[in-house]
Amino acid sequence: MTQLQSPPISEDIPLTDVQTAHAKAVELGQHMLRMTTASGSGHPSSALAISHIVVQLMYRTMRYDLNDPWSLANDRLVLSIGHAVPAIYAAYADLGGVVGNDKALARKLTVDDLLQLRQQNSLLDGHPNPAEGFPFFDAATGSLGQGLSVAAGLALTARLDGIDKRIYVIIGDGEAREGQVWEAADFAVDHKLHNVCAIFSCNGHGQADSVSTQQSADAIAAKARAFGWHVVEIDGHDPSQIANALEVVGSVEKPLAIVARTVKGWGVEMMLGKNFHGKPIPQDKLDEACGQLVATGKTLGVSKTATWSPAAPTPVHQTKAPAKIELPSFEKAVTRVGLESALEKKRLATRVAYGAALVALGDVDDRVVSLDGDVSNSTFANMFAKHHADRFIECKIAEQNMITAAAGMAAAGKIPFASSFAKFIARAADQIDMAAISRANIKIVGSHSGVSLGADGPSQMAVSDVAYFRSLTRVDTGGERVGCRLFHPSDPICAYRCVELMANVEGMCYLRTHRPDAPFLYDLNESFGLEGFKQLREGDKLTLVSSGYMLHTVLEAAKKLDQQGIRCHVFDVYALPLATGPILEAARNAGGTILTVEDNYIGGLHAELAEAAAESGDVRVHGLTARKMPKSAITAAEIFTHVGVGEAYILKKATSLVEG
Amino acid sequence: MTQLQSPPISEDIPLTDVQTAHAKAVELGQHMLRMTTASGSGHPSSALAISHIVVQLMYRTMRYDLNDPWSLANDRLVLSIGHAVPAIYAAYADLGGVVGNDKALARKLTVDDLLQLRQQNSLLDGHPNPAEGFPFFDAATGSLGQGLSVAAGLALTARLDGIDKRIYVIIGDGEAREGQVWEAADFAVDHKLHNVCAIFSCNGHGQADSVSTQQSADAIAAKARAFGWHVVEIDGHDPSQIANALEVVGSVEKPLAIVARTVKGWGVEMMLGKNFHGKPIPQDKLDEACGQLVATGKTLGVSKTATWSPAAPTPVHQTKAPAKIELPSFEKAVTRVGLESALEKKRLATRVAYGAALVALGDVDDRVVSLDGDVSNSTFANMFAKHHADRFIECKIAEQNMITAAAGMAAAGKIPFASSFAKFIARAADQIDMAAISRANIKIVGSHSGVSLGADGPSQMAVSDVAYFRSLTRVDTGGERVGCRLFHPSDPICAYRCVELMANVEGMCYLRTHRPDAPFLYDLNESFGLEGFKQLREGDKLTLVSSGYMLHTVLEAAKKLDQQGIRCHVFDVYALPLATGPILEAARNAGGTILTVEDNYIGGLHAELAEAAAESGDVRVHGLTARKMPKSAITAAEIFTHVGVGEAYILKKATSLVEG
Repeated sequence: MTQLQSPPISEDIPLTDVQTAHAKAVELGQHMLRMTTASGSGHPSSALAISHIVVQLMYRTMRYDLNDPWSLANDRLVLSIGHAVPAIYAAYADLGGVVGNDKALARKLTVDDLLQLRQQNSLLDGHPNPAEGFPFFDAATGSLGQGLSVAAGLALTARLDGIDKRIYVIIGDGEAREGQVWEAADFAVDHKLHNVCAIFSCNGHGQADSVSTQQSADAIAAKARAFGWHVVEIDGHDPSQIANALEVVGSVEKPLAIVARTVKGWGVEMMLGKNFHGKPIPQDKLDEACGQLVATGKTLGVSKTATWSPAAPTPVHQTKAPAKIELPSFEKAVTRVGLESALEKKRLATRVAYGAALVALGDVDDRVVSLDGDVSNSTFANMFAKHHADRFIECKIAEQNMITAAAGMAAAGKIPFASSFAKFIARAADQIDMAAISRANIKIVGSHSGVSLGADGPSQMAVSDVAYFRSLTRVDTGGERVGCRLFHPSDPICAYRCVELMANVEGMCYLRTHRPDAPFLYDLNESFGLEGFKQLREGDKLTLVSSGYMLHTVLEAAKKLDQQGIRCHVFDVYALPLATGPILEAARNAGGTILTVEDNYIGGLHAELAEAAAESGDVRVHGLTARKMPKSAITAAEIFTHVGVGEAYILKKATSLVEG
Repeated sequence: MTQLQSPPISEDIPLTDVQTAHAKAVELGQHMLRMTTASGSGHPSSALAISHIVVQLMYRTMRYDLNDPWSLANDRLVLSIGHAVPAIYAAYADLGGVVGNDKALARKLTVDDLLQLRQQNSLLDGHPNPAEGFPFFDAATGSLGQGLSVAAGLALTARLDGIDKRIYVIIGDGEAREGQVWEAADFAVDHKLHNVCAIFSCNGHGQADSVSTQQSADAIAAKARAFGWHVVEIDGHDPSQIANALEVVGSVEKPLAIVARTVKGWGVEMMLGKNFHGKPIPQDKLDEACGQLVATGKTLGVSKTATWSPAAPTPVHQTKAPAKIELPSFEKAVTRVGLESALEKKRLATRVAYGAALVALGDVDDRVVSLDGDVSNSTFANMFAKHHADRFIECKIAEQNMITAAAGMAAAGKIPFASSFAKFIARAADQIDMAAISRANIKIVGSHSGVSLGADGPSQMAVSDVAYFRSLTRVDTGGERVGCRLFHPSDPICAYRCVELMANVEGMCYLRTHRPDAPFLYDLNESFGLEGFKQLREGDKLTLVSSGYMLHTVLEAAKKLDQQGIRCHVFDVYALPLATGPILEAARNAGGTILTVEDNYIGGLHAELAEAAAESGDVRVHGLTARKMPKSAITAAEIFTHVGVGEAYILKKATSLVEG
């Protein structure tokens, strides 16, 4: 068969680009094999499938600074098919790109580092993870189908900032089944993100089996066209076809989808013909596998590699972030949006206060952007849309894409506030998990939280959200940061200042707002800190603790209890993690018993105080939470009663706790 | 302009079908207006947009028994655009369909009932909600984009059961942005669900604004074609076009998508021309609005209505469910799947035990089906696929559709076990919320839970799942049921029996399995109940409590503590909600202190015991939970140490608690 093969070229003839690309693919492929065998796990076959695509992108097409992976000027690569990451690590090590958690600790990645893949002390995590020291990536990926949304957020930010930057994303065929991919495809067309290039690696194999014909290269191409993308179909191992397809980016008035037919385990005979997924080559077969790769290279006419490096990006001016973001007075902010009347009525829903705060934030900081999912007239993000139209991003009814796109925008320096009904935010729970892993500086806002919205019924009520977000509030994510901070204001003045706190604290935050109008509880100029609570009433018999709209019912109950001679401390907890110490101390001096009241399921405020009290053992904590599946009811009072936290329940429980 | 209108027809000439359809639409439209005005909230304009479609479906096309909405023989209607539900209520009341939570309490819905819409004591919830007494529906909808998945589950079940049944689903144009709709579209083609008919109501208006051109009728039609559906485009207010389009169902070898151009607020002039969304007509304008609707009817040549009623379905034989599902011995079940070797090694991963249990379940109960998302070789659902191929449903990488389709199958009488990595189950958090509202009898299985999988890193680790699912465990959903039961076995024998418990308990369950092999802790014939715990060691100084794979590290620590003279009780908690009493009592008699250890974030086992202990106040509870964001590490021990729950941490904490 030798006649069918190109003859090995002699040392002194320069390699052609095509031969060099093949040579690089073969060289990097051996790194992929060796690093995964060394770690004892990983996905070399999926990595090999994208080796030619990665070579063309990272050595030739992308414009980026190997010494400054943080630069906003760089073209970016998002690896949606996260388990193929050994391909990227191999190329980046070969190129000597810079790694580290910040510029102070920066160093060049070496080929030796590759053998530390997946080790506890290694910055080469099992899947893309910028937070462990690999800033070439903008977001953690590996939970599939999210990369195109990250890319969309990066691309939109580049356009807002006037940076000529291209965003490439590599997506697996199997993961193209995830609906989020198509939410992102719609978003890219709506927002004319023609600087985005999605490359689908269609190797035909999933984990458990072949991919569905619904995700064949032809099907993906047809779908992408139907979604309004420009589509180019290529052989994913033909360097010329890859290079030519990538040339199309930006030359058409559509986002570009390159549908590439690839081979899982390319070049390694022992991996071909069967579905070799998620397994490294055994140590005793490693040399043989590498040999097969070299042999494949020889059939392609290459015997050595040449040195290649990426082109530098056009420098961009990066503005320095202000040390602290300070909002004007509450009075000024509500007047700014035409809500003066609230100052007289002394009533305003926390969701409306959010809208006013967001407008004020937009006034003082250009980094603030607002994303919403077709409910901006309910969340009141529409106020921001009116006053800062250029920084309002309508995501339509697609919450998964909204959250991940926000994470992409945060990675490029924005402070995104993403809002919807709190219930629909749950749609993006896994995307929120991934944003937490990325340490994404995103601010999530859920309106109509809890059950107080009443009439629309349970399909619109968020009742597990406090337990879910609280689970992230005591996770150390480095520095001063925690996985998430949860804000749950009871009145508009507190809500206004919570938004200011969210903008100033680094990392993910979740704001829980409510539908009904709430009376003012605080002075217009009250200040609020991260300790998370305020004492509203003094007592000596019992300590009542609540949050959000529910607190107003608790205050009414406290007045009635007072008339019965049961004076209660009342605390408003507006933020988690909570400084529990002072509340426990107050309770010790008032009968030693706390009653928490929440219009959400267990795992929230009650758990926060019970966990603290159970350590000290000298304060009792009882909790009223929503214990019955909610349904529709016309008023908030009716639904509070239905789920077991209405005023009558509070009075009964409080009395029994005091009188025993 | 009278010439342009058809003359009012005289009483003695029978109405044509077209005229009757218009007349019904006008008649039902007035009910929609009146009931939403009465409730003070609701979405009459979205309901009016589907009035002609609903008339044709519920009076003419669908074959169902108005007196037995529970019958498996009935064609079904899923209202994905849940806020348009007044249209369904109006038609069902006009038809006198039966409502109620069970046959014993069944009664006919009346037109007067409509005015109770959204009241706390009404079974007409704000959005479709079968659990409150409207069994015409199979699942709660209202969180958008989920209906097609419900329909797919119903359609697949009908085929498995050999029932000639058609499933119709009405989807809004705006909600067609949700990726889940396209996950379901892929699923319907993969599984050849030609008995499904999706009707898109394209009125062009969302909530905050117009729908994107990406969701125009043309765009939705193009996408549906690209996804392999047969598409018919019609005028959604032309009775003939609707009737003819619906005739196509089942006559083509593809699922049918009817793309209907509709008018939001059809027939009510004061609602037209602007985006009138989610608002009822004010009381003082109600008669005028109804008058406009009647006037519209007159222009269509109708002055009275005729009586119509749906055709009866072909009766089907419904088998009675066994009182109790009993699995064979663990020994027999593992032998059945060729895992005898585990009986000698006395080691088996809980995820593998799940696979063996699922096969055994399939042997004894035909209702058991298994759904998985392309990871069946990791979750071990592939064992079921091998032994019960006809009841294994490959959902590919689309977890949202998988969970909602499972809920659809449960509504039709199956006991679906839906499995994926626990991390990816979070993808479907909102779908799980909706299934809980529906009281869907689904069993969710998350493998590779917690951090013990190590090397793959945080993108594959579920660490918030315990807090999330626990939030549902004390929600009363009627009868003996709770929102969800969480099972978290530490050894394969317990895992096996947990699966048996899940199959027998009515309602949603979540099983958390782990990747690593686990040593046997229990006798092969040990039995397990819903109290949720077992005591494994006796002590007198401290009480250690843990779950799942983490427990084995705790047992190792307990042995070392014993050698130091610190004898500890050790409890294995395998289910929540937990009977906490006996554990607190044991702790009281052993120093009064509990230490919980979990490889997940806060809000789980620690909260469960702390909430109980803080009420009694005489037991201290301290908790070790994952407090640091995880990353890759090669071994489980390394990652336990990284997040702060490794053996050294347990020894240190336990010692300090005892020695103070």
